[in-house]
Amino acid sequence: MSIGVCYFPEHWPDERTEADVERMADAGLEYVRMGEFAWSRMEPEPGAYDFEWLDRAVSRIGDHGMQAVLCTPTAAPPKWLVDEYPGILQEEADGTTRHYGGRRHYCYNSEEFRRESRRITEKLADRYADDPTVAGWQTDNEYGCHGTLRCYCDDCASAFRDWLRETYGDIDSLNEAWGTEFWSQTLNSFAQVDPPRHAAAGHHPSRLLDYYRFSSDSVAEYNRLQVDILREANDEWFVTHNFMSHDDLDAYDVAADLDFASWDSYPTGHVQVQHEAVSDEELRAGDPDNVGLDHDLYRSAADAPFWVMEQQPGDINWPPYSPQPAEGAMRLWALYAVARGADVVSYFRWRRCRMGQEQYHSGLLAEDGTPDRGYGDAVAAASDLDELASVAAGDADGSFASPDADVALLHDYDNLWASEIEPMTPDFDYWRHVETYYAALRERSVHVDVVPPTAELAAYDAVVAPTLYLATDELAETLTAYVEGGGELLVTMRSGVKDAHNKLHDDAQPGPLRSLVGARVEQHESVPESLESRLTYGGREFGCRVWNEWLSPTEEGAEVVGRYEGSMADGSPAIVRNAVGDGSVTYVGTWPDSDLTGAVVGDLLDRAGVETTDAFPAQVRASRRGGLTWIANFGGDSLSVDAPDDAEWVLGGPTVGPAAVAVTDANLSSLSPAEE
Amino acid sequence: MSIGVCYFPEHWPDERTEADVERMADAGLEYVRMGEFAWSRMEPEPGAYDFEWLDRAVSRIGDHGMQAVLCTPTAAPPKWLVDEYPGILQEEADGTTRHYGGRRHYCYNSEEFRRESRRITEKLADRYADDPTVAGWQTDNEYGCHGTLRCYCDDCASAFRDWLRETYGDIDSLNEAWGTEFWSQTLNSFAQVDPPRHAAAGHHPSRLLDYYRFSSDSVAEYNRLQVDILREANDEWFVTHNFMSHDDLDAYDVAADLDFASWDSYPTGHVQVQHEAVSDEELRAGDPDNVGLDHDLYRSAADAPFWVMEQQPGDINWPPYSPQPAEGAMRLWALYAVARGADVVSYFRWRRCRMGQEQYHSGLLAEDGTPDRGYGDAVAAASDLDELASVAAGDADGSFASPDADVALLHDYDNLWASEIEPMTPDFDYWRHVETYYAALRERSVHVDVVPPTAELAAYDAVVAPTLYLATDELAETLTAYVEGGGELLVTMRSGVKDAHNKLHDDAQPGPLRSLVGARVEQHESVPESLESRLTYGGREFGCRVWNEWLSPTEEGAEVVGRYEGSMADGSPAIVRNAVGDGSVTYVGTWPDSDLTGAVVGDLLDRAGVETTDAFPAQVRASRRGGLTWIANFGGDSLSVDAPDDAEWVLGGPTVGPAAVAVTDANLSSLSPAEE
Amino acid sequence: MSIGVCYFPEHWPDERTEADVERMADAGLEYVRMGEFAWSRMEPEPGAYDFEWLDRAVSRIGDHGMQAVLCTPTAAPPKWLVDEYPGILQEEADGTTRHYGGRRHYCYNSEEFRRESRRITEKLADRYADDPTVAGWQTDNEYGCHGTLRCYCDDCASAFRDWLRETYGDIDSLNEAWGTEFWSQTLNSFAQVDPPRHAAAGHHPSRLLDYYRFSSDSVAEYNRLQVDILREANDEWFVTHNFMSHDDLDAYDVAADLDFASWDSYPTGHVQVQHEAVSDEELRAGDPDNVGLDHDLYRSAADAPFWVMEQQPGDINWPPYSPQPAEGAMRLWALYAVARGADVVSYFRWRRCRMGQEQYHSGLLAEDGTPDRGYGDAVAAASDLDELASVAAGDADGSFASPDADVALLHDYDNLWASEIEPMTPDFDYWRHVETYYAALRERSVHVDVVPPTAELAAYDAVVAPTLYLATDELAETLTAYVEGGGELLVTMRSGVKDAHNKLHDDAQPGPLRSLVGARVEQHESVPESLESRLTYGGREFGCRVWNEWLSPTEEGAEVVGRYEGSMADGSPAIVRNAVGDGSVTYVGTWPDSDLTGAVVGDLLDRAGVETTDAFPAQVRASRRGGLTWIANFGGDSLSVDAPDDAEWVLGGPTVGPAAVAVTDANLSSLSPAEE
Ligand SMILES: [Mg+2]
Ligand SMILES: [Mg+2]
Ligand SMILES: [Mg+2]
Ligand SMILES: [Zn+2]
Ligand SMILES: [Zn+2]
Ligand SMILES: [Zn+2]
Repeated sequence: MSIGVCYFPEHWPDERTEADVERMADAGLEYVRMGEFAWSRMEPEPGAYDFEWLDRAVSRIGDHGMQAVLCTPTAAPPKWLVDEYPGILQEEADGTTRHYGGRRHYCYNSEEFRRESRRITEKLADRYADDPTVAGWQTDNEYGCHGTLRCYCDDCASAFRDWLRETYGDIDSLNEAWGTEFWSQTLNSFAQVDPPRHAAAGHHPSRLLDYYRFSSDSVAEYNRLQVDILREANDEWFVTHNFMSHDDLDAYDVAADLDFASWDSYPTGHVQVQHEAVSDEELRAGDPDNVGLDHDLYRSAADAPFWVMEQQPGDINWPPYSPQPAEGAMRLWALYAVARGADVVSYFRWRRCRMGQEQYHSGLLAEDGTPDRGYGDAVAAASDLDELASVAAGDADGSFASPDADVALLHDYDNLWASEIEPMTPDFDYWRHVETYYAALRERSVHVDVVPPTAELAAYDAVVAPTLYLATDELAETLTAYVEGGGELLVTMRSGVKDAHNKLHDDAQPGPLRSLVGARVEQHESVPESLESRLTYGGREFGCRVWNEWLSPTEEGAEVVGRYEGSMADGSPAIVRNAVGDGSVTYVGTWPDSDLTGAVVGDLLDRAGVETTDAFPAQVRASRRGGLTWIANFGGDSLSVDAPDDAEWVLGGPTVGPAAVAVTDANLSSLSPAEE
Repeated sequence: MSIGVCYFPEHWPDERTEADVERMADAGLEYVRMGEFAWSRMEPEPGAYDFEWLDRAVSRIGDHGMQAVLCTPTAAPPKWLVDEYPGILQEEADGTTRHYGGRRHYCYNSEEFRRESRRITEKLADRYADDPTVAGWQTDNEYGCHGTLRCYCDDCASAFRDWLRETYGDIDSLNEAWGTEFWSQTLNSFAQVDPPRHAAAGHHPSRLLDYYRFSSDSVAEYNRLQVDILREANDEWFVTHNFMSHDDLDAYDVAADLDFASWDSYPTGHVQVQHEAVSDEELRAGDPDNVGLDHDLYRSAADAPFWVMEQQPGDINWPPYSPQPAEGAMRLWALYAVARGADVVSYFRWRRCRMGQEQYHSGLLAEDGTPDRGYGDAVAAASDLDELASVAAGDADGSFASPDADVALLHDYDNLWASEIEPMTPDFDYWRHVETYYAALRERSVHVDVVPPTAELAAYDAVVAPTLYLATDELAETLTAYVEGGGELLVTMRSGVKDAHNKLHDDAQPGPLRSLVGARVEQHESVPESLESRLTYGGREFGCRVWNEWLSPTEEGAEVVGRYEGSMADGSPAIVRNAVGDGSVTYVGTWPDSDLTGAVVGDLLDRAGVETTDAFPAQVRASRRGGLTWIANFGGDSLSVDAPDDAEWVLGGPTVGPAAVAVTDANLSSLSPAEE
Repeated sequence: MSIGVCYFPEHWPDERTEADVERMADAGLEYVRMGEFAWSRMEPEPGAYDFEWLDRAVSRIGDHGMQAVLCTPTAAPPKWLVDEYPGILQEEADGTTRHYGGRRHYCYNSEEFRRESRRITEKLADRYADDPTVAGWQTDNEYGCHGTLRCYCDDCASAFRDWLRETYGDIDSLNEAWGTEFWSQTLNSFAQVDPPRHAAAGHHPSRLLDYYRFSSDSVAEYNRLQVDILREANDEWFVTHNFMSHDDLDAYDVAADLDFASWDSYPTGHVQVQHEAVSDEELRAGDPDNVGLDHDLYRSAADAPFWVMEQQPGDINWPPYSPQPAEGAMRLWALYAVARGADVVSYFRWRRCRMGQEQYHSGLLAEDGTPDRGYGDAVAAASDLDELASVAAGDADGSFASPDADVALLHDYDNLWASEIEPMTPDFDYWRHVETYYAALRERSVHVDVVPPTAELAAYDAVVAPTLYLATDELAETLTAYVEGGGELLVTMRSGVKDAHNKLHDDAQPGPLRSLVGARVEQHESVPESLESRLTYGGREFGCRVWNEWLSPTEEGAEVVGRYEGSMADGSPAIVRNAVGDGSVTYVGTWPDSDLTGAVVGDLLDRAGVETTDAFPAQVRASRRGGLTWIANFGGDSLSVDAPDDAEWVLGGPTVGPAAVAVTDANLSSLSPAEE
C-alpha cells in the first residue's frame, strides 16, 4: 500500500529533476510514473533517440529508494511520424479525419503504426531491461479516450473483414447469425462488409455489436503487441494499463494480458458526466459508489489488487464545472481506493503544467512549485498507509488482504454495447442501472466482485445480475447450476432479450432464462416520467421508473412478490421469485427506486446469509481490508458510528468527519450508523 | 372495408409460410402486403433470381381466399448493387455520403439506379401479371423516409440544372424569378447552379424552394417509372404508395399517378415527434386530429378511399418513448381510419421480427408466435367491419360511401416548404397551424377534404385556408370567384406573403389577396411567450400566440371583428371580415388559441350553413360513413352521447369507453356530447 | 451629425433610382451607402463591367446635395468567379467546403482572390476617383460574419506557416513559446504545422491562440490591400469598414488602417444572442450598455467619431424572435449613437427587399414603397440632429465634441480569444464580464474609452481592466507606472493567468501583476449556481457567481476589502486593495452581481475624483456631447430627472418617455434620477 505520483520531467528544465525527486521522497511517495506522452522527446527526429532525461529521472528515483513506472509513449505519436504515415490517423463514421493536434491520433489497426509502436517499445524495453529502479510498465495511456475506441477508416474496414472471417468462417454463417434478410442486407462475401459509416437510417444492430466487439478486440490485440515485447525483455516487470471510468473498452479482455489493472480516478469529474443530477456534496467529493464500482471492477478484472494510476489531486480541467474539492477529499479518495483493494494510488500530477491542454488541471504542487491543496493530503495519505500497515493483518508479501467477496455483480461489455445500440428510451443507461444495484449492496457494506457471467460463481453466496441483455443457453445453464447449488440470484429488467448476435430469441423474453426466472415478459414499455407506476413489495409501496416489464409466472416455483400499482401496468406482476433447486432467483422487471432496490437486495442477502451492516447513508461506505474496517465519508456532514466499547480506532474515531476516513479493528457486523 | 397485414415470409423458415397464412385467414384478414425490402432475397446475386418463396406465399394466400399486395423492393437495394454502382448513394449537403447499412440508400436521380429499378420492377411485373391473387402493388416504401427526400450529389446537381432549364427556359428568366441581384447571385448559365450545399450563410430562399420542388418532383418522376411498368403489365392492378405522416413529399403530385393513396399510421409515435407537449392520453392512443388530418389528406390526395398500409399494432421502436398503447387502441385506430374513409387497414406487422433494425417494433404476434396485444384488436376490428358492412348503406361495389365534404381545408406543399425555409420563429410549424384549424372543424364533426388551392372549390360550403403563404393572381382570382359565388372563406396569418418564387410581392402582404381579404398587413412580428397579446372577438377575450399581424381594413366591406389587447399590438385589428359578392372572407392575423379558433370557425360554419354538432372534447371525434355515425374516443375516460331515443347502436352504445368506438344510425345533428 | 441610409439601386428597376434619391433627400438624409454586394451587377461576366446604374445613383445623390459612400463588393464574389477559382472557398475545421450560395464565400489568404479583389477595387477606385459626390469607402462588408473569420483550407495552412516563421524566426523558438513538450507536440519545422483541424482531443491552447491571431491578422492584411488602393486613388476619401457587435476580429488592428471605424447596430438582435436572459424591454429596444459598449469600442478603436453604418430600422430577420421595436426606438438608437460619439447614423436599409435572404428585414420603406415604422423615426432623428447642431457647442469643423473620457476600460482581443479557448465553465463569457463593468461606469454617467492595454493611460483618472488574462512584464510595468503616478486601477478575476503565448506563468496567478495587485490567487474554482457564495464588502453583503478566486494579500500595502461568505470559500479574501505609489489597485476575484459591481466601481470613481451622477436605472443612460447632456431611455416606462430650475431642454423635457431621448444644457453633475 503506497502512494505514487505521475511525473513529467520533460516539461521542466533538466536541472529541476533532482530537486523534484527529492521532494517526492520527502513527501513519502514510493512510485513515480513517467513517459506516456514523451515520444517526441524520446525520438525528436526519426531514428534519433534521446533518453538521457529519462535515465536521469529513473536514476534519481532509484537513489531516493523509490521505484519508476515507465510508459510506452504510443498515445501521442510525434508530428514527424504522422506526416510520414498520414494513414495512421483515425476516421469518424462520416469520413472526417481525426487530425493531429491533441492525442490518441492513431488507428489500432494501422500496420504502419503497429510497426512504429513495436520499434519504440523495443527500444525502451531494451534500454531499461536491466534497471532495477524500473518496477514495471504502463502500456500506452487510456485506450479509447476522446471517443477513439472506434475508428471507421479503410484499415479498420479491412481488419473488420478479417475479424468476421475469423469469427464466422463463411458468409452464410454471418448472414444467419446477424439475420441479414431484414431490409435486404444479405451479403455475398466478407469483402462486402464496411464499417458502419454514416447512413440515413440506423444500422443493423448485429452489425453494430460486432463492430463494437471488433473495435475492443483491436485494442486488446494492439495492447498485446506491447505487452509481449515488455515481458520478453524482463519477465520480472509488471505490465499494466490505465483504464478509464465506466468505459466502453472490454477491461476483462485487455486485463487478461496484464499483471494487474489500473485506472484513472477523477471523482468530481466522473460524477458530473455520468450522473444525471449532481448534488453539492458530489460536486465536492464525488459519489462513493460511482467511484467504488470502478475500483471493484478493475480489482476484479485481473483478480488482483489494482492501482489508481491517476488520482485526482485537486481541481481539474475537463468536467463542465471545476469547483474545489472538499477539504481532505484527496486523502479520502486515496484511502478509500486502498479500502477497496488498491495497492498503489498515484496522484496525477506532481506539479501543475504551465503549457498545453491541461493547464487547468492541478497537481500536488502549484505551477510555481508551492504545495497545492492536494499536497498535504497526499503526504497524510502516505503516512496513514504506513501507520495502517503497521497494525493491519498483512499477508506474506506485506500487502493487506482484501476479503473474499460474498457477492458477485455480473457485468458484461456485450450487454453494455447492445443496450447502447438500442436504448429504447433516453432515460436508460446501463452503467447507472448497474450502479443502482451496486449501491444497494455497498450501503450494507457487502464486499463485491464485479465479474463477467463467465466467472466461476460457486463461491459467491449471492449473485446480482443487472440487465443480462444477451443470454445464451450456456449462460442459462451456468446460472441454473449456480442456483440449483444453493445460490441466490437476482436478475433485472431487460434480461434475456437477445441472443449472442443481438437478435431476439425465438422464445419471448427472457428467452433461455425462462425456466430459471420462472416468468415470461408479457410486455415491456419505456416509461416517461408522467406515466410512472408505483410498485408494492413486501407490503410496502415504492417507486419505479424508465422501463416496465409486465411479467407472468410460468413455473410452479415462481411466486409474484411485487406488483405494479397505477398506470397501465396496474396489478401486473413486476417482481417474481422462483425457487430452483436449493436456491432461488428473483427477477425485477423495472428500474426500482433506491428504497425498493435496498429492500429487494436486503432480502436477497438475508436469504443468502451474507453478513451485512445496517444501511449507511448514500455518502458513507464501510469496507474490510487488512483485517480492519474502513469507513469513508464522502458527505459534507459528520457521521457517527455505533461501535463496540472495545473497538480500537487506528485512524480517526467513531465520528467520521466530512470527506474523512476512519479505520477500526471492529468487525463490520458490530458497526452501525448511529441514529440521528 | 377490410383488415390486412404486412408480412415478411423471407424473415422466417420457408415451412412456416403455410401456417402463417392460415392463421391470417382465421383472424379475418383479407389482404397481405409483401416484398418491399426483399430485393436481396429476390435477387441474391446479380441476375440470379429467386421468387419461389414469394410464389409460395402468394399461392397460399390465394388458397385461403385472401389477396396479396406486392411491393417493388427498391427501397433497399442489395449490397452487391451498391458495390457495383457506388454512385447511387445519396450525399448530405456537406458532401458526406449516406452509406449503405440502413435503407433508402439510393438517389432518385441516379440513372444507374433507375435502370436497375426498371429491371427488377419489370421482372416482378412479368412474373405476377397473370396471378389473380395479386390485387395490386405498392411502389417502393415511404419515399423520403430518414431525411432522404433531398440529396445533394452530382447526379442531383445535373438533374436540378435540367429541371431549371425545363422550368425557366433561359437563365435570365431564372434570375428574374429568383431575384438574384441580391448578394451578387446573378447567374450566367444553368451550368452554374449547384444544389444548396453547406455554406457559411443561409441560402437564397428562392433557390431553396426550387430545390425542394425539384426534389419532390424527382420522387414523382422516379415513382412514375415504376407505375408505368406495373400498369403496362396488368391494367387491372391497383398501384399505390405508402406515404408518411405530415410529410414533405408532395402527395398530390405523386398520388396523381396512383389509383389511391396509402399511408403508414403510428398514432403514438407521430404525436410524440409532431406535438410540442404530449399528454398521457396521447402517449397511449395518439391524437385523433393528428391522425385524422393525414386520413383526410390522403383520402383527398387521390380523391378515393385510401388505405392505411401500415397500422401501428402495439408498441413501436422509433419514437422517444414506447409506452404500451391503451387497451383497445389498435381496434380504435382501425375503425377510426375506416370512419375517415379508409377501405383497408393493414397492420404492420404480422409477427415481431427477431432480427435487424426493428426488433423493438411489435407485431400482431410476438416473436414466439403467441398473440400479442394487437392480435385481439385486429380480429375484433375485422369482425366489426363485417358486422358494420351488413347494416351500413353500401354503394354499388359494396364499399361504404363517405359523404361529400362540406368544407375544404386548403393545403399546399409550396407553403409548407417556403415556411420551413423562413420560419422566422422557433415556434412556427406549418403542420401544427393547419392542425389547429382542422381540429376546430372536426370537433364540430364536419367532414373535411384536404385539398390544394387548385382544387375545384365551388361545391364546398366553406373553405379554410391556413397560411396561404405563396399567393399568385391566379389564386386570388380562384378564391375571389369562390367567395363571390357565395362561398365562406377563412384565411389565416402569413398568407399572401410571397409570390410563386418565394419573393415578396411588390404590394405589401397579403399581396394579390388584398382586395379579397380587404385588409393590409401593416406589421408582423414574431411573439415570444412573454410578449403574447390577448384578443377580443365577439365580445369575449381569448389568447393568441407565436405571430401577430397588425391589420388595417382597406376595403369598404371590411369590418374589424377582432382586436389585440395588451402588448404592443394593443388595439390593432387582428381579425377582419370582408363581404365580397355573395360570400365573405375572414382573415385571422395571428395563431389563435383553441377556444378562439373554435369561435371563429364556428361562426364561419354558421354563415356557411354547414351542419355541425356541438363541440366534442379534444379526444372524441364523430364521423359519417356508410350512412352511419361513428364516434371514436381517443381519451382515457368514457364519454356519454345524447342521442335520440330511437337511435340504433350498431357497435357499442351511447357511452363510449376509453379507446373505443361506437356506431349508430342516428344522424350527426341529432347527437351531442352529454353534459357532465 | 447626420443621418444616412443603405441603398441597393441594383435591387430595383433603374427608373426608380431618381425617385428614391429624391425621397431620401426629402427625408433629411445626407449619406447613401451603396454597392457592397453588387459585384455580379458591376461585372456580370469576367472583364465585362457595368457601372452605369451606380453612376446614375451617385449622380442623382450629388444632384440632391447628398454624399455617397461606396463599398468594395468583395464580400460576395459572383458565381462565375467561384467557378473559375473554386480554391477561394473556405473550409471548415472538419474539411467541409463552405460553398457558394450565401455570402463571404472566400478565403482571406487565397492569392487568387486577393488578385481578383485588387482588380475590382482598382476598377472602382479609378472610376470614382474624381467624383466629388463620393465621400469615401467602406471596405468589403462585416469581415468574418457567419463564422468566416477562421478558415482551415490549404491556403490558410500555408499562410499560417509563413506567419509563424515571421513571428518566431526558428522552430525552436516556437517550441519554447508554445510549450510543445506537452503531449509530444515538439515540431521539427514550420512545415509540420497545420491549421487546428478536427481532432479527437482538444488542441494545444497556444497553437489555437496563434491561429486566432493569424486569422485576425489575415483579415487586417486583406483589408489593407483594399485600403491602399483606395487611398492611392484619392487621398481625400475616407476609408472605413463596418464592424460587427462584440466580435472576434481585432478591431484595433483593422481600424489602424482606417480613417474611422463603423459598426452595424441591431439592438434587439444582439441582445437576444448575447444576453443569457432577455427582458421584454430588451426585446423591444435592446440594452443601452450592450449597444453602448460597441459605440465606445469603435469610437476608441480609431480614436475618432464613428459611424453606425447600419442602424436597425425596425423588425429584423436573423434573431430567434423578431418582435416589433418599441415606438420611437429607431429614433432613440440614432440619437443615442450620436450621444456616444457617432457622426453619422445610416439606417439599413432604404426599402425592404423583395428577394433573397433578407426579405424579413425591414427598411425605412416597406416593400411597396410606403413608409414603414422606421421612416418617421429617421426623419425625426435627422431633424433632431439639425436642431441640436444649432444649439450645441461645435468644434472647428462643425461636429459636436465628445468630452475626453475620465475612465478607460481595457479590452484586449488576446484576452477574448484565450478565454474562449479555455472558458472552464459554460457560464463564463468575456464580453458579458466586460459589460458588467461597463454598465457600472455608465449607470453613473461616466464617459468611457474602450482601449487596449497598450493605450496611453496617463490621462485617465481611473482604469478598469476586466480579465487581463494574458499578462506580460511590459503590461505590469505599464500599469504600475499608471498607478504609481496616482491612477486608480481596477483589475478583475482571471487576470494575470497566462503569458503572451497562452501558457501559465512560472509564478502563480496573477503572475507579473503580483506586486501591483498585492495578492496571490491561492485557488480558483468555477462555481455552478448551487455552489454560489455571498460576499461582504464595505459592511454589506452581495452576491457573486461563476468563478471564485481565493486571494491572499502578499504586499504590505494590500488590504482585504471583500470576503466570501458561505460555500467553501467562506472567509477567504475575495477583493483586495493595494496602495501603490500615489494610486491604488483593486483586484476583484469573482464575478460580482450588479450591486456589488456598482459599489466597487463607485468607490473607485470616488477615489479617482471622477465626476458622476447617481446611478440611473439599467435602461437609462446619460451622456455628454456638444456641450449638452443627452438622456436616453431604453425602458418601457417614463423616467423623471431632477434638474436645475434653469436647465434648458433642447429636446424633450425632464420626463423622458419610453424609448425616448431628452437633451438639456444642464451639467451631468446637476442631474439625478428622480425618486420614484
Ligand atoms: Mg466479452
Ligand atoms: Mg405543388
Ligand atoms: Mg492585439
Ligand atoms: Zn481505423
Ligand atoms: Zn442525388
Ligand atoms: Zn483559407
